[in-house]
Amino acid sequence: GRVKGRRRAWLLSGVVSANVLILGCALVSGSAFSDVNVSPAEVQIFLTILLLLTIAWMLFYTAYTAHRDGAVLYKDGHAGPIWLRGGLVLFGIFSLIMDVFKIANYTGYTHCDSAVKIVYPAVQAVFILVQTYFLWFHAKDCVQVQKNVTCCGLMLLLSTNLMIWMASVTEESLHQTDIPDNSTARALEDSDCHCSHSACEIFEEAYQYLYPFNIEYSLFASAMAYIMWKNVGRLVDEHGHHHHPHPRFRFQGVLLGPTAGLVMLVAGLATFVVYEVDVKSSHPVTKWAALDMHYTMNTAAACLMSASSLGGLGVYWLDKRGHVSGKNPTRLLDVALLLGASLGQMVICYFTAVAVVATGIAGETDALNLACSLLTLAQLCLQNLFIIEGLHRQPFDEAPAPAVFANAQAHALEGTLPPAGIAVIETKSHSVAMPEPTTQPGLSRSWKRWALKEICAFLLLGNIILWIMPAFGARPQFDNPIGLEFYKSTMWVPIVNIALPFAIFYRMHSVASLFEVFLIS
Amino acid sequence: GRVKGRRRAWLLSGVVSANVLILGCALVSGSAFSDVNVSPAEVQIFLTILLLLTIAWMLFYTAYTAHRDGAVLYKDGHAGPIWLRGGLVLFGIFSLIMDVFKIANYTGYTHCDSAVKIVYPAVQAVFILVQTYFLWFHAKDCVQVQKNVTCCGLMLLLSTNLMIWMASVTEESLHQTDIPDNSTARALEDSDCHCSHSACEIFEEAYQYLYPFNIEYSLFASAMAYIMWKNVGRLVDEHGHHHHPHPRFRFQGVLLGPTAGLVMLVAGLATFVVYEVDVKSSHPVTKWAALDMHYTMNTAAACLMSASSLGGLGVYWLDKRGHVSGKNPTRLLDVALLLGASLGQMVICYFTAVAVVATGIAGETDALNLACSLLTLAQLCLQNLFIIEGLHRQPFDEAPAPAVFANAQAHALEGTLPPAGIAVIETKSHSVAMPEPTTQPGLSRSWKRWALKEICAFLLLGNIILWIMPAFGARPQFDNPIGLEFYKSTMWVPIVNIALPFAIFYRMHSVASLFEVFLIS
Repeated sequence: GRVKGRRRAWLLSGVVSANVLILGCALVSGSAFSDVNVSPAEVQIFLTILLLLTIAWMLFYTAYTAHRDGAVLYKDGHAGPIWLRGGLVLFGIFSLIMDVFKIANYTGYTHCDSAVKIVYPAVQAVFILVQTYFLWFHAKDCVQVQKNVTCCGLMLLLSTNLMIWMASVTEESLHQTDIPDNSTARALEDSDCHCSHSACEIFEEAYQYLYPFNIEYSLFASAMAYIMWKNVGRLVDEHGHHHHPHPRFRFQGVLLGPTAGLVMLVAGLATFVVYEVDVKSSHPVTKWAALDMHYTMNTAAACLMSASSLGGLGVYWLDKRGHVSGKNPTRLLDVALLLGASLGQMVICYFTAVAVVATGIAGETDALNLACSLLTLAQLCLQNLFIIEGLHRQPFDEAPAPAVFANAQAHALEGTLPPAGIAVIETKSHSVAMPEPTTQPGLSRSWKRWALKEICAFLLLGNIILWIMPAFGARPQFDNPIGLEFYKSTMWVPIVNIALPFAIFYRMHSVASLFEVFLIS
Repeated sequence: GRVKGRRRAWLLSGVVSANVLILGCALVSGSAFSDVNVSPAEVQIFLTILLLLTIAWMLFYTAYTAHRDGAVLYKDGHAGPIWLRGGLVLFGIFSLIMDVFKIANYTGYTHCDSAVKIVYPAVQAVFILVQTYFLWFHAKDCVQVQKNVTCCGLMLLLSTNLMIWMASVTEESLHQTDIPDNSTARALEDSDCHCSHSACEIFEEAYQYLYPFNIEYSLFASAMAYIMWKNVGRLVDEHGHHHHPHPRFRFQGVLLGPTAGLVMLVAGLATFVVYEVDVKSSHPVTKWAALDMHYTMNTAAACLMSASSLGGLGVYWLDKRGHVSGKNPTRLLDVALLLGASLGQMVICYFTAVAVVATGIAGETDALNLACSLLTLAQLCLQNLFIIEGLHRQPFDEAPAPAVFANAQAHALEGTLPPAGIAVIETKSHSVAMPEPTTQPGLSRSWKRWALKEICAFLLLGNIILWIMPAFGARPQFDNPIGLEFYKSTMWVPIVNIALPFAIFYRMHSVASLFEVFLIS
């Protein structure tokens, strides 16, 4: 009965979601690539209706479903970690600012343009507020009641976020491509409708820069909605235990990795600032020098990080620690998200490498670009293997963080609390009974542990700098004209605009995962 | 150890596959959309290397791995069903003919063009032969030895098939779009290289028509390779039993459904033939009449099939038969493939509907086109729900077909045979102990059973006619200019070329699934 109900709820919500997404996809494509038949206003009406429906469901869930008896018996400790929720709030704030700018901009056009253009950002602002509140407080819920409604609601949430993502990517791409024959994208400017107040241009300029944050926000929210959807109807499958909920974070004895990482972080920040200033220069020599510097910095970082990941894999190969057994759906999803997000960076790297090789490696910049792409690919693959291997090991001497813990309030109502403590004892005895390959177990273990902690700290700081550069506006993919010339702007701009947000998401996610590996080691 | 090894093998092969696919994607895009930098010959060299590697691995597997002790302890009865293997052979034969035509065509250009153009189809022909043999005999294997190598090999097989699919879709789209400024696609014709024998044009014309079969072949092989990959290292999780391996197929008492289905099939065939003749007519009135007739036929079929699916769902709602419990990975995959493939048809329907509504419903043809799209959408959703509901019910009185059966030969070598018979007894007692809602269990059951069989038979024949039309060349998406005008050929041609093969695959798959539901009912 339970399995059947869960399957039916998933199926039903999947059908709803597929229909919404495909219809939305057709509308967005129609408005972007067709001549004048589907106006952007019509797409915005569709999105507004979708947003209103989703807001209504989220309010219903928060006010009614979550408070019913037995609605949330368990909470998934792995779902909605703090970095994901923090990132959601951060990007949510930027998205709100974008919406305010949009409203301010469109008020200047009210006398001659459709009013929907103001309604849509206003509704979106409300949606961002409600959704951030909803995901912050309910991301860990394993919902047990009204499964059909909740599944459909979560899929609606997911579809809405993906639709906003799709619409934003398309809008951003059209803005960057500037195809002369595309009349709809420039309909506003081409028409006789002029802004009635003077600040319009500033607002328009400003909100164009905020699109990437909105794209990231949608991705974060989609990931969280998907995890919640998978958790609907999930029963506790590990014993919940409250001992050592967080392994203590200690930096003692770990010095080399953090120091090297900090040096790289500072060097990266310095080159990033210089790059951002110089690459806009009208002087070509300065511009190419800036690109060379950026590629050199990235190549060096990728090289060092690949080497340390490889070292870490070697340590794991020597280390015979036990593997975490048992299925954990959220952990599996976490790993799948990590691997999926890394595809974004891989796409950019391979496309760049093919473009450079096919045009013939003409100069120093091309060679550096190629080296940077190939080493980044190696770094991605090795780092993924290192993180996944690390996440699946037993902690060295601390109990694991509780995977699914009981919702004490709900259990107090029901009068049943799962037995605690069994899993902890098992883990302890397991790690004590471990066969040791060397004669001095303590010393050997502490050596490996130290090495893993150093490597994790270094990789963590390296990923932070590789996150900062694209997140705050470095776009060597567009500054270096090779991609645009080789693939034409109609293809290269969408590729980069779709892949780069995933690359940024990947760096944040790997920072969080490396922090977890650091704690386990 | 086992779980860890399986996870590591999957991870490693996933990394290999992602790299091959993304590199291939970059090369294909570069050759299709760039000017002259990546020549088609370079892409073909890449594909040839990939094909040779895959052939080598398949031969190694067939000759060495499969014959090792304990290599294939179990076979998955659900994997590689006869319709999938039969379709593979059918489409494989057409693909072979295509390769022969290609070789014959390119021999005329040897004196002035790259020899790779002959090598590639020749290697592809060998690949098709080896792969069809390999998948025919080994599709059911659950491999237990050399998991890393086998996983990587299977992922290589999957990637190669997807690459061939991608290259074929691109080539077919370029051929249909005829963008004037695309120099590479027409490089052969534009250059001074002329064919040395007179049959060239006939061969070229002929092999263009065979592309869709090659695309279908790649999709079939990909699906089978994916199922084999998921089965690597899989242990039997149901008791194997050999009683009633196939429920008997009986038509007695089932008359209404097959008759109505046959009438529809004959009517569909008649309209299809008339459509194919008339739509090529230069007289616009005849052409539009043919389109009207085609849409009317499809609308009527979708309408009747939706109604009967809905009726079937009603019967299931009344019927309190037990649900199949326990996880079956292949069955899950099967359902996922069915749902995934239905997205292809849904994309075409939604895009058509948006185009028709946005341009304003001008005449009778537009109204019919819209009705056909919307009813087909309803039909897809209802039929998917009906099939999935049907597949998850317990058989009425026969034992289920064995899900995973022991490889007797391998077990004889090892001397261990799993206990048989337990599951059968369990199933029987289960269906006897079922609570019956009515006072006359036998009569009520037979009534429902009869209704379900009628509906299955009707839907099965309906799907056959809906399969025949697109598979044998009906392309109302291109014959009716509305899609091309609305989305422009650069977008509409790739959409249809990607989505339509999935739609064809979906119809075949649903015929097979409905046959299974018929047997269970």
